[in-house]
Order: sequence, then structure tokens, then C-alpha cells
Amino acid sequence: MDELLSWWGKTVGQNHALRLVDICLRGAGQVMLQNNPVTGFLFLLGIFWSVSVEGAAAVAIGAIVGLVVATMTAILLGSDETSIDQGLFGFNGILVGVAVPTFLVMGPETWFLLIIGAAFSTIAMLAISHVTKLWGVPALTFPFVLTTWFLVLAAYSFGHLPIAGMGPPALPSPFAEPADLSAASFLNACLKSISQVFLINNAVTGIIFIVALLASSVYAAAFAVAGAMVAVAVASFLGANPADMSAGLYGFSPVLTAIALGCVFFEPSWRVALFALLGTVVAVIVQGALDAAIAPLGVPTFTAAFVFVTWLFLLPKLNLKPHGHEPVSDGIMTGK
Amino acid sequence: MDELLSWWGKTVGQNHALRLVDICLRGAGQVMLQNNPVTGFLFLLGIFWSVSVEGAAAVAIGAIVGLVVATMTAILLGSDETSIDQGLFGFNGILVGVAVPTFLVMGPETWFLLIIGAAFSTIAMLAISHVTKLWGVPALTFPFVLTTWFLVLAAYSFGHLPIAGMGPPALPSPFAEPADLSAASFLNACLKSISQVFLINNAVTGIIFIVALLASSVYAAAFAVAGAMVAVAVASFLGANPADMSAGLYGFSPVLTAIALGCVFFEPSWRVALFALLGTVVAVIVQGALDAAIAPLGVPTFTAAFVFVTWLFLLPKLNLKPHGHEPVSDGIMTGK
Amino acid sequence: MDELLSWWGKTVGQNHALRLVDICLRGAGQVMLQNNPVTGFLFLLGIFWSVSVEGAAAVAIGAIVGLVVATMTAILLGSDETSIDQGLFGFNGILVGVAVPTFLVMGPETWFLLIIGAAFSTIAMLAISHVTKLWGVPALTFPFVLTTWFLVLAAYSFGHLPIAGMGPPALPSPFAEPADLSAASFLNACLKSISQVFLINNAVTGIIFIVALLASSVYAAAFAVAGAMVAVAVASFLGANPADMSAGLYGFSPVLTAIALGCVFFEPSWRVALFALLGTVVAVIVQGALDAAIAPLGVPTFTAAFVFVTWLFLLPKLNLKPHGHEPVSDGIMTGK
Repeated sequence: MDELLSWWGKTVGQNHALRLVDICLRGAGQVMLQNNPVTGFLFLLGIFWSVSVEGAAAVAIGAIVGLVVATMTAILLGSDETSIDQGLFGFNGILVGVAVPTFLVMGPETWFLLIIGAAFSTIAMLAISHVTKLWGVPALTFPFVLTTWFLVLAAYSFGHLPIAGMGPPALPSPFAEPADLSAASFLNACLKSISQVFLINNAVTGIIFIVALLASSVYAAAFAVAGAMVAVAVASFLGANPADMSAGLYGFSPVLTAIALGCVFFEPSWRVALFALLGTVVAVIVQGALDAAIAPLGVPTFTAAFVFVTWLFLLPKLNLKPHGHEPVSDGIMTGK
Repeated sequence: MDELLSWWGKTVGQNHALRLVDICLRGAGQVMLQNNPVTGFLFLLGIFWSVSVEGAAAVAIGAIVGLVVATMTAILLGSDETSIDQGLFGFNGILVGVAVPTFLVMGPETWFLLIIGAAFSTIAMLAISHVTKLWGVPALTFPFVLTTWFLVLAAYSFGHLPIAGMGPPALPSPFAEPADLSAASFLNACLKSISQVFLINNAVTGIIFIVALLASSVYAAAFAVAGAMVAVAVASFLGANPADMSAGLYGFSPVLTAIALGCVFFEPSWRVALFALLGTVVAVIVQGALDAAIAPLGVPTFTAAFVFVTWLFLLPKLNLKPHGHEPVSDGIMTGK
Repeated sequence: MDELLSWWGKTVGQNHALRLVDICLRGAGQVMLQNNPVTGFLFLLGIFWSVSVEGAAAVAIGAIVGLVVATMTAILLGSDETSIDQGLFGFNGILVGVAVPTFLVMGPETWFLLIIGAAFSTIAMLAISHVTKLWGVPALTFPFVLTTWFLVLAAYSFGHLPIAGMGPPALPSPFAEPADLSAASFLNACLKSISQVFLINNAVTGIIFIVALLASSVYAAAFAVAGAMVAVAVASFLGANPADMSAGLYGFSPVLTAIALGCVFFEPSWRVALFALLGTVVAVIVQGALDAAIAPLGVPTFTAAFVFVTWLFLLPKLNLKPHGHEPVSDGIMTGK
């Protein structure tokens, strides 16, 4: 792996087009906080696998368009070179590009919306980072969440933006029929919790994503798997809707929270693992809370639970030894 | 014009009552980010024109009361003299004073609400500016938006605050019957997009407001007109409700966004115009999104779309040459 | 009183278990911004009185568990010693502990929720204080509000967290049958406005709480009583629901606002009293507004009106002579 990355680094340095490919692949990798082009490539592979099985080509095209538009916008606006090179302006764009075709029917107006949204995600990234930098925490995926909330909410107001797969808006009502998961359902729910980080409901994609994380960091893969297991177990204990659990909808934010707290913004240790465990449990509760809170609007929560919980757990600036302070010092940095 | 302003400046310097009039007129002008008493006077004229046509005297009285109460509150609290002189404590108050009689039936309790609200808008201005100053952006009309949300939402809880023209609360539902605008409707929609900045649905008032902007800045007038045209065109392309478009409801926030980004907080240039164009398009999408998001509460969005989009486009602190950094450096400043 | 406190201080200094008791009692006292163990003890007594009358033992147990878990979490995380000693990590936890058994049916899953929530309230306190410190204001009870919103909203998503006393979610609808309060109802409403600060609907508890405040500060007691009277009078003038007024639901946030603005963060004077009066009136309006805004979610507003209004009135950093600047300089400090 190290040799591959070193060869890639040399090749990229000699070619402008390849450098853009490298930046975009790192942008894909940053969705799970990994600054690694191989990880990003495997994430795209996982998306393409699901797309080829489901026949939803627009999701794959949207992912590439969103990634490239957001990255090019950052370059055109003359943003910080180091941040661009680490892919920090790509991960929100690729998520916008996956989300729009997942929830809306694609046509000229929705493609226009997707492109404007991807470009705007970069402006939102710059804006939100400017504020969170004052707090000493990263923007995480909040630019994606905010941008995509605007885009999919707008679909309720504009007749040429037809809704494909969300809503309808409804007042929250208590869920009354919890049921236990079988062992096979549990495993399935864990894998889909990982694939749903990219809004994909596919267990094989979940496995590809774990391999992608392994290519970057054993810790990241371990915290992702552990986060998924904790999330499904807690959701089941609290009596969540089995269909939602099986689709991974209770796990994607806790998975990201576990990675972020467990090995990205703190250095892994037993103390940090315990702290990340508490964060992961809280992320499950907050996921349930936000699902209820957003129900009247008929749009998804996206990764809002991850963002809010991770911010709240990073903001105390706890000195969880042996924790280096650097990783949280720059608001725009989301990976090492 | 320059001679008129110079004579006025000399006259005002010699008389306390006239100084208050000057501050209040500038406060009216600051609703569209213009520190100019003639512009403010013409804005009031535009309001009075609509009021005399529609017979809604309470709106005119409310405007004056809100403007004076908010300004006097700032003076009584010993706020910054320069900001007071520029009318920066008046624009939120006049908007509160126009909004309350527009949405509620006036009576002793609603007048009490209006006066408390206007006074509070100055405290909200001081508070919000204190926070946005840390971010290096102005408060814009957020004090008005926040204050008036409190006031009109309270009308659902209190029986002596009867609702006149808003709601009913409803879950968002996709709008299904978009239709093209005729050329006449398009022109009408553009003019009303400008009058709706003061919550007024009147094309003649829109024309008076354009003249008022011309009295202060040709750029401001040009960006207002261009912003209105872009807004109605984009809303129409995305398939907005024709009745809402014709009433200017998709244009008032984009108009303010175009003025703010195009010639107030950046110096006009082609690069800035492109940036303002993107901001204006995003403001239309965000207007649609907020309309859906707020539907369950049965209250208007006011200028929230303008505030959120303009903040997001100012926060990156882009160095769009030939842009001077000064205009965004003081949180409380909203005009030059 | 001074001798009692001095003897207690000496005793506490010699014994670790007693020190924890002292910290916890101060934590209870800080719910009304009083750093005083006797006040805290009497607050607990007021809770126990209501619990013994109503037979709701889980509320009393929850209060103690929430208080101890939140305080212990702060100690385990190595938080600031001075803040711990002042009880600043206990008041959010005790409120979480009272709220969960008030709104949910207790069982293994809800006790788990309560304990996780109490621990999380301390992390939220550290996180929110970190942000509000930049603004120069305290976190107030926002950690409690945010945490408990998450917990009770989650009850709509999880089948093993049954709802006892809140909701159902409903769109806001104008309240149409205001009625005048009798003198007895008015008194009752005032006392319950004070007891509802701890979510308790009991006039005797309100009296015990006034005595508890007297033990710490005559001003605090006076502003609490005056705040309650202003709140009920304004709510009645605006035409609030008499049942809600009588249960103290329009008064608890204004009571806290009156104490905070009148004698905790500013030094009492006529000028400050007028400012606090305006804040108290605004808090009643904001209470009504938030009740409407949160109705579709079917959860309580908790003390959000107090938090938002007090922040907005503290943020201007007005120099209301003879006001010392110290009390608002440290974000985490909520009492003297």
C-alpha cells in the first residue's frame, strides 16, 4: 500500500489532470474522514456496485458531478491549497451529488439544482468553517446537510423538482411495534449502517466500504464496525423500527461519530474508546430525536446527528491523554 | 442631489428634532442597505402610496411608530453614536412596525406587542451584532426576522392577538401546477419583488422604491432590478406557484441578496456580479426551502432567506478583487 | 444563616463524601442561579413535598440520580474545579432527572436514557459554555434544554420509551377563549410559575422555593415573585389559555429571566429593574411563540424562552450602571 501511494504521489505530481483526479478521490475518502485516494477510489467502487445492482445510474453520475463541481468551485474561488489537496472541498459535493438523485426525480431542473447545490456546498464549507474555526472544531459534513436540506425542501415549493423517495410530511407519532432482530438481520443492519454513510442501502457496498477504510487505517475500519454494532444494539434495546434498523438508518451517524471521536480527532486509547462509546450511544438517541423532529417537513436528517453529537463531544476540548491537540485546531480540517 | 444632501446636513446639525428625523429617514433607507435620508423618505412615500390605495392606515402608522421606538430605544440605551447616526437601529424597527399590522388585527394588545417588539428589535440588533461581529459579518435584517417570528408566533398562543393575514399552519405538500408567466406578469412580479422588501404588494410602490435606490446609488438600483429579474426567471424555471411569483414572494430576498453582494459588501465588478448572481439563484432556492420548512408553523419567512444566504456568501471572506475588506469588518455596519 | 454556612464550609472541607453532597446541593441551587447549599437543600425539599403529595417517586429519584451522575461525570472528565465546586455541572443534570420521569413512563430503557442524558448534559455544558464564552455570556440552562429535547423527541422513535405526559404533536391553532383570572387563581398561578422552574405543578412547592431563594438572596426572592406577577399579568392581558396560566406554564421562564437580569448578571438598581421588566415581558411573548413553534413536535419548550431572552438581553453588554462587568465575563459561570 505504501509503495502504491508513493508511486501515485510521484505520478500525480507530474500531471495536472491526474492531480485533479487525486484531489477528487481524496474528497470521496474524506466522507469518512480519510485523506487517502485509494480509500476514495474504493468508496466510488462501492457506490458503483450498488448503482449497477439497483440500476440507478443517476446516483453514480451525480456523485461524480457533485464531486468535480464542488472541487472546481473551490479551485476557482482560490481557496486554501492545502485544504484543496486534502480533498476537504470534495466530500460535501459528492454527498450532495448522491442525495439529489436519491430523493428527487432527475430532469433538467433537478440537474441544475444538483450543480448549483454542489457549487454552493463549497461556499457553505468555507462559511461554516470560518465560524467553527473560532470554536476550534471542524465543519464536518454540516455543509452537505445544510445545502441538501435547502435543495430537497425546495422540492416541496417548486413543481419542476419532482420528489422520488422521501416524505410525506407527517406529525411524529410514537412507534409502537418494536421487534427483535435475528442474528442475520443484525449483521445486515450493521453492514448497511456503513453503506448508508453514502445514502446507499446495500450490504455488499458496506463490505467494500470496510475494505476501503482498511486501506487507510485499521483503526478507522475497527471503529466503523464497532460503531455500527453498538448503534444497532442500542437502537434495538430502545425499541426502534426494525425495518429502519435493517436498512441501516440508525447506524450511519453513529458510525461516523465512532470514527471521528475514536481515531480521527483523538488518538486511540481505552479512555478515548470509552468516550467514543458514549458519543456513539448518544448519536443513536439523537438520530431518533431528529427523525421525529424533522418528520413534519418530510425530508431526511442526513448526517445531522453525527455533526451535532461530534461537535458537542469535541467542543469541551477534553485533554483525553494521549491526545494531541493538533487535529481539532484547524476548523477546516476534517482528516489527519 | 449632492447640494440637497449638503444643505440637509447643515440644517440637521443645528436642530435636535431634525437630527432625529434624519436618523429615522436613514433607518428607513437601511432596509435596502442605503445610508441616505432621501432614499428613506422615498421608501416611506412608497409605503404611504400603497397604504392610501389599500386603505391600510395601520401599516403606515406602525412603520413610523416602529421606526421611532427602535431608534429611541437605541438612544436611551446609549448605543454607539456612529451606528445610530447611520440609521442602523431603525431598519429592523420599521420592518417590525410594518409586519405586525400586516399579519395581525390591530387593537390595544397588538399595539402593545408592536411597541415592545420595536424596542426589543434594538436589543436584538445589539445582541446579534455582538455575535456576528466575531464572524466578521453584519447582522443584516436578522433582528427583524427573529423579533417578528416571536411576535407573530405568539399570536397563536394569545387570544387577544387576532391573526389577520397569515397561515393556517399546514404540512408542506408538493406544488403540482406550475405555469408560465406572461411578459406583463413577469414585469409585475419583478416590481412587486422589490416592493415586498417592505412586505408591500404593489407594483407602483416597486417603481417608487427603484427611484429611491437611484437617489442613493445607481448600482443599488441596477442590482435590485437585475436581482428581481433573475429571481422571477429562476422561480419560473423551477416551477414555482404563479400566484406567489406574481405577488413578488419569490423575489424580495434575492433582491436584497443581489444588492448586498453586488454593490454593498463587495465593490461592483464582473467577478463580483457573477458571485452575486450565484447568491441570487441560491436565494431563490432557499426561499422555496424556507417556505416549506415554516409551513407547519403558519408564519411568513420574512427576509430569512436573504439573511442566511448573504451570511453564507460573506463568511468565506473571499478576496474578490478589487474588493476592499472594510465593508464587512464591522459586525454592526450594514451600509457603507 | 452566615454561621450555618461557615460551620458547613468547615465540616465539608474535612470530608470527601460531604464535599460531594455540598457540590450536589449547590448544583440544585444553581437551577435558580444560586450558589448556596441551603437553597439547594430547600429546592430538593420542595420537590420531595410535591412528589409525596402526587405519589410520583420516580421524579425524586430521577432528580437525585441526574444530579449525582452529571456531577460525577464532570469530576471524571477532570473539569474545572472551581466550576464543579460552585455546582455548575449539577443544575442541568437535576433538571434532566426531573424531566424524564415527568414526561416518560419509567422502565429499564427510560432509566438508561436518563443516566446517559444526565452524563451527556455535562458534556453539553462544557461544549455550549465553550461557545458562549466567546460571546461573553453564560450557558444558562441550555444544556438541559438541548439534552432533554433529544431525550423526549427520541421517545417518538423508540417503542421502549413510552410517553407519559406530553404531546400529542399538533399544528398550532389560534387560542380563542381567553378568560380573566380571579384573585385566587392569580396568586396560585404566580406560585406555580415559581414551582414550574423545576417542572413541578404545586403552589406549596412554590412557597418553599421562595423561602429557599430568601436563604440565599432577598433580591433573588423579590425578583422571582415580581417576575411571576408580571408574567401572569402580561399573559392574562394578551389573552393566554387560563388553564396553562394557572398551571404556571407562562411564568417559569420569565421568573428565571427576572432573577438573571435583575440581580445575578447585573447589580440591582432602578435602571436594571426596568431593563429586567422589559426582559420579563419579552419572555412571556417568547414563551407563547415557542409553545406554538414546538407544537408540531409534541414536546415541551422547557426553559428555552428564558435562555434565548436572557442571552439576547445580556449580549448587548450594556453598561447599566452601577453594573460590574465581572458576572458576565466567564461563560461557564451562571451564579455569583
